[in-house]
Amino acid sequence: MDIGIIGLGRMGGNMAERLRRAGHHVVGFDPSPKAREAWTGRGGEAVASLDALIGQLPSPRAVWMMVPAGEITGKTVTALKSLLGRGDVLVDGGNAHYKDTLQRAAELQEAGIHYVDCGTSGGVWGLVEGYSMMVGGDEEAVERLRPIFETLAPAPDKGWGRVGEVGSGHFTKMVHNGIEYGLMQAYAEGFSVLRHKQDFDLDLHQVAEIWREGSVVRSWLLDLTADALKKNPSMDGIAPYVADSGEGRWTVAEAIDLNVAAPVISLALIERLRSRDTDSFSDKLLAAMRNQFGGHAVKSE
Amino acid sequence: MDIGIIGLGRMGGNMAERLRRAGHHVVGFDPSPKAREAWTGRGGEAVASLDALIGQLPSPRAVWMMVPAGEITGKTVTALKSLLGRGDVLVDGGNAHYKDTLQRAAELQEAGIHYVDCGTSGGVWGLVEGYSMMVGGDEEAVERLRPIFETLAPAPDKGWGRVGEVGSGHFTKMVHNGIEYGLMQAYAEGFSVLRHKQDFDLDLHQVAEIWREGSVVRSWLLDLTADALKKNPSMDGIAPYVADSGEGRWTVAEAIDLNVAAPVISLALIERLRSRDTDSFSDKLLAAMRNQFGGHAVKSE
Amino acid sequence: MDIGIIGLGRMGGNMAERLRRAGHHVVGFDPSPKAREAWTGRGGEAVASLDALIGQLPSPRAVWMMVPAGEITGKTVTALKSLLGRGDVLVDGGNAHYKDTLQRAAELQEAGIHYVDCGTSGGVWGLVEGYSMMVGGDEEAVERLRPIFETLAPAPDKGWGRVGEVGSGHFTKMVHNGIEYGLMQAYAEGFSVLRHKQDFDLDLHQVAEIWREGSVVRSWLLDLTADALKKNPSMDGIAPYVADSGEGRWTVAEAIDLNVAAPVISLALIERLRSRDTDSFSDKLLAAMRNQFGGHAVKSE
Amino acid sequence: MDIGIIGLGRMGGNMAERLRRAGHHVVGFDPSPKAREAWTGRGGEAVASLDALIGQLPSPRAVWMMVPAGEITGKTVTALKSLLGRGDVLVDGGNAHYKDTLQRAAELQEAGIHYVDCGTSGGVWGLVEGYSMMVGGDEEAVERLRPIFETLAPAPDKGWGRVGEVGSGHFTKMVHNGIEYGLMQAYAEGFSVLRHKQDFDLDLHQVAEIWREGSVVRSWLLDLTADALKKNPSMDGIAPYVADSGEGRWTVAEAIDLNVAAPVISLALIERLRSRDTDSFSDKLLAAMRNQFGGHAVKSE
Repeated sequence: MDIGIIGLGRMGGNMAERLRRAGHHVVGFDPSPKAREAWTGRGGEAVASLDALIGQLPSPRAVWMMVPAGEITGKTVTALKSLLGRGDVLVDGGNAHYKDTLQRAAELQEAGIHYVDCGTSGGVWGLVEGYSMMVGGDEEAVERLRPIFETLAPAPDKGWGRVGEVGSGHFTKMVHNGIEYGLMQAYAEGFSVLRHKQDFDLDLHQVAEIWREGSVVRSWLLDLTADALKKNPSMDGIAPYVADSGEGRWTVAEAIDLNVAAPVISLALIERLRSRDTDSFSDKLLAAMRNQFGGHAVKSE
Repeated sequence: MDIGIIGLGRMGGNMAERLRRAGHHVVGFDPSPKAREAWTGRGGEAVASLDALIGQLPSPRAVWMMVPAGEITGKTVTALKSLLGRGDVLVDGGNAHYKDTLQRAAELQEAGIHYVDCGTSGGVWGLVEGYSMMVGGDEEAVERLRPIFETLAPAPDKGWGRVGEVGSGHFTKMVHNGIEYGLMQAYAEGFSVLRHKQDFDLDLHQVAEIWREGSVVRSWLLDLTADALKKNPSMDGIAPYVADSGEGRWTVAEAIDLNVAAPVISLALIERLRSRDTDSFSDKLLAAMRNQFGGHAVKSE
Repeated sequence: MDIGIIGLGRMGGNMAERLRRAGHHVVGFDPSPKAREAWTGRGGEAVASLDALIGQLPSPRAVWMMVPAGEITGKTVTALKSLLGRGDVLVDGGNAHYKDTLQRAAELQEAGIHYVDCGTSGGVWGLVEGYSMMVGGDEEAVERLRPIFETLAPAPDKGWGRVGEVGSGHFTKMVHNGIEYGLMQAYAEGFSVLRHKQDFDLDLHQVAEIWREGSVVRSWLLDLTADALKKNPSMDGIAPYVADSGEGRWTVAEAIDLNVAAPVISLALIERLRSRDTDSFSDKLLAAMRNQFGGHAVKSE
Repeated sequence: MDIGIIGLGRMGGNMAERLRRAGHHVVGFDPSPKAREAWTGRGGEAVASLDALIGQLPSPRAVWMMVPAGEITGKTVTALKSLLGRGDVLVDGGNAHYKDTLQRAAELQEAGIHYVDCGTSGGVWGLVEGYSMMVGGDEEAVERLRPIFETLAPAPDKGWGRVGEVGSGHFTKMVHNGIEYGLMQAYAEGFSVLRHKQDFDLDLHQVAEIWREGSVVRSWLLDLTADALKKNPSMDGIAPYVADSGEGRWTVAEAIDLNVAAPVISLALIERLRSRDTDSFSDKLLAAMRNQFGGHAVKSE
């Protein structure tokens, strides 16, 4: 089917390509000429403005946004509100906060535009392996996009589904990412214990490979971990600095709002914050307190 | 090859069966007549004593223990010390603490008996899917058992390996289980957040199925979780009571001994302890403190 | 000096009384006739409406709100905006979120009214022992209220101070409460460990009394804990249910916003959430998972 | 009364001095000539060997050990076993693990020597303020030492008590220190949040002083924290490195053994471990995993 893709970066470019390879008519737009060139270089069709994008699509239109969550998504939605028409469908495939999504959907609904939120997982591997998609929105709109979801998914009937009304897709993806933080941290801690047990001089890559087959902890993240440990078993040159892109924070906040105890997801996030603070004020204060009451020496900076 | 299996329970019985089906000559022993009958019912060969077991095996003998960690393992090793001879190999496939394993290996070494520790993962699914095995012990002994490991593993060259000297197998399996606790807790928290978001009325089984294909959180544990949610989406009739079989505790203790920060594995264990305490003294005391300083009402039991 | 007090409940009534006893002219208002009667019964002067309250105060007026945070504070501020005049000072002594305080201050500033936020600690003991007050607001306004702060504090020059511009008082109080959660949880856990060590059959009240004098953990919270343990050493009749009034949640959220790792304060909050969930879905799911992979029995509800 | 003190370091020297000032006849021994000189410099009476110490004391003897927990305590007890006689009392005032204490007490009991364990809190301030002491041992022995405890305590009838049989004193002190970790961490986190809220530019020393009077979080640790913040408000020159002396680890292990959920004490310990790991392998691995699945850049070392 015909679809416009807004955002041709790491995620959007690969999704557009997966659709194009399957025979869909994909028109791409990205504000960056470089991203557009990369897309046309792959054989894709690109336009240089939102206006042009909308102009290329037959009514009722289907447009998929794959842009960074936050301000850019907001601005793009505002711009599209006046360009799209009654009965068109706009999909946000990014990681917006579900509350923002609810607000945007309400705005577009006034103009008769369907808003669909698609939580998209799969990372850079999705082009080849397909994407896992949690979709929210009214049934009619989601149904109309079915050929797109069936192509992007690992298989037509697998790895995607309409999970509920608009907002539910991004909500579910947010929790997915919260879980991801917890899983990653569990593996990281375990491998760290193995590494520090110097008596046994374990080969962490070998252990990961053993666990990949038949063990209770086998997973796709473990597959990736095995690959990372193969390339760089002692993690040389990699700073112990772990970024986060927001969904973990939202999951922690949501758990608290819902009165759900989520200690592991919370601690996984907190450890990321900790990783970025190489000059912890609280640890300095603890050292100072110990000195105060026990006369314990503090280590100098 | 010829092998004796001690312990024909849930794990040992299935392992014996997987070996038997592959053509190995397996002699089984279990103190429970019922377990022996189950094994002979499957077509296996059983004996009624350790003596008889050892008598049935050609020298140098290979014996695999699959008995509960702790006292029973200790007693079995003591008994075997006098029954086995120089050059025989005894494998502990259970979940012993690696420090006990080191001690037992030292004892048997005096008698010239090789002790091999095999951390075995795979649970009740291992019969069909194969087991993941982390093996510790001297190279010669492990090599002699190669046909056994190749049969028990998911594939001859996958899912098993000698990770180091004796003790390293159980150590690695212990950490495997610590990771398992963290992974399980991360999923459990995430699904709990989804369930409590009543606005979206999510179908947890559907979400699990979507995540199984293409998502970052796909894993074997998620496959099992999807199955559990399919059978019983609201977990009716299941008490919120989570047992533990020890390896998580040992992992936490080991992490602390090694000065490795393992917050997520630790909290996953602590939540299990918490799940079993339905009359928390600390929570009662907190309620009493709030009443003391703020006049906040306490809830009566 | 002359001051109007809005809210004559547990906190406001005691503060009004402490001011009255020190010779200030206090006019009190509470929408509840019962609260007003309690106040007049103590010898206080009460009025039945905000209008009447403002009418009784000389210009420039000083008004102290001690009402529940949230909607009621918002409505009271809105009402006072039209009743108060240029140069008047309105103090919010409650536990408002500092971001709401910033917004309210901005609104009142348009009308020339000074808004002062006072984070107030001390609970039901403040009447006798004095209150600890963290004050935010412009210097002139805070200075004008000095006689009030000096009376409410444990001593004129102790236990209170202007910590910065408006909002900083409530911010500081919020963090105070976050710390409070952590302290309480630490004591509760420790006493729980003592109680569960049945070999030693410790007298928890005695231990608390010993610690009150000379130990590193001595504190006012420990004094209260000792009192609670004296009255009810086994916490009979008290449900293990711990409420929270919001500031702990805000502290956790703020720490995350500021990228500050606050594991202990976060976990202290999470334990409170956990205490209220006697039917934990995540624990049920964990039990179901263990059954899936290991065949471990689940406990029935 | 007559008492021998073994160990004239930071703690032992001050305790000996507090006893001497009160008129007790104190004979001190320390293997370090420097420590002995410091003690004689204060006017104390020192001897150069354990033999000499025992020789100076009238029967039945009272001896107080104040030496580092671990090997030194063990060796000292072994040496004293042959020097002391039936009916003598030996007090261990240090931080031994209670399980070691139970074993030592059993050994000495064979020789008719009473063993008393005294968990001692108060740090370097104890000389002036008195010590908090949790005492375990048989009633007769504890009673005989009463004049000593009454002198060392903040007041004769305050801050000390026999909490149970031998071992219970060190057990209680261990938990005291676990609580201490939690309290310290809660304050440290709170002040760190305050410090990072740059909008308000808070004076942390001022805040601590306000809280010291009338607030719910007032405590002796807060008094010390205020002092530390006064001297060095930005903790300049202090490394964010927090040592631990073992009791926190034991408390965490004991809580797990007793199936008591102690998340805050556990996390307080874990943060100390984390503070000492400036090259976290788990954080490096997390960064590598994010790169693997999402193409997120890793920060170079």
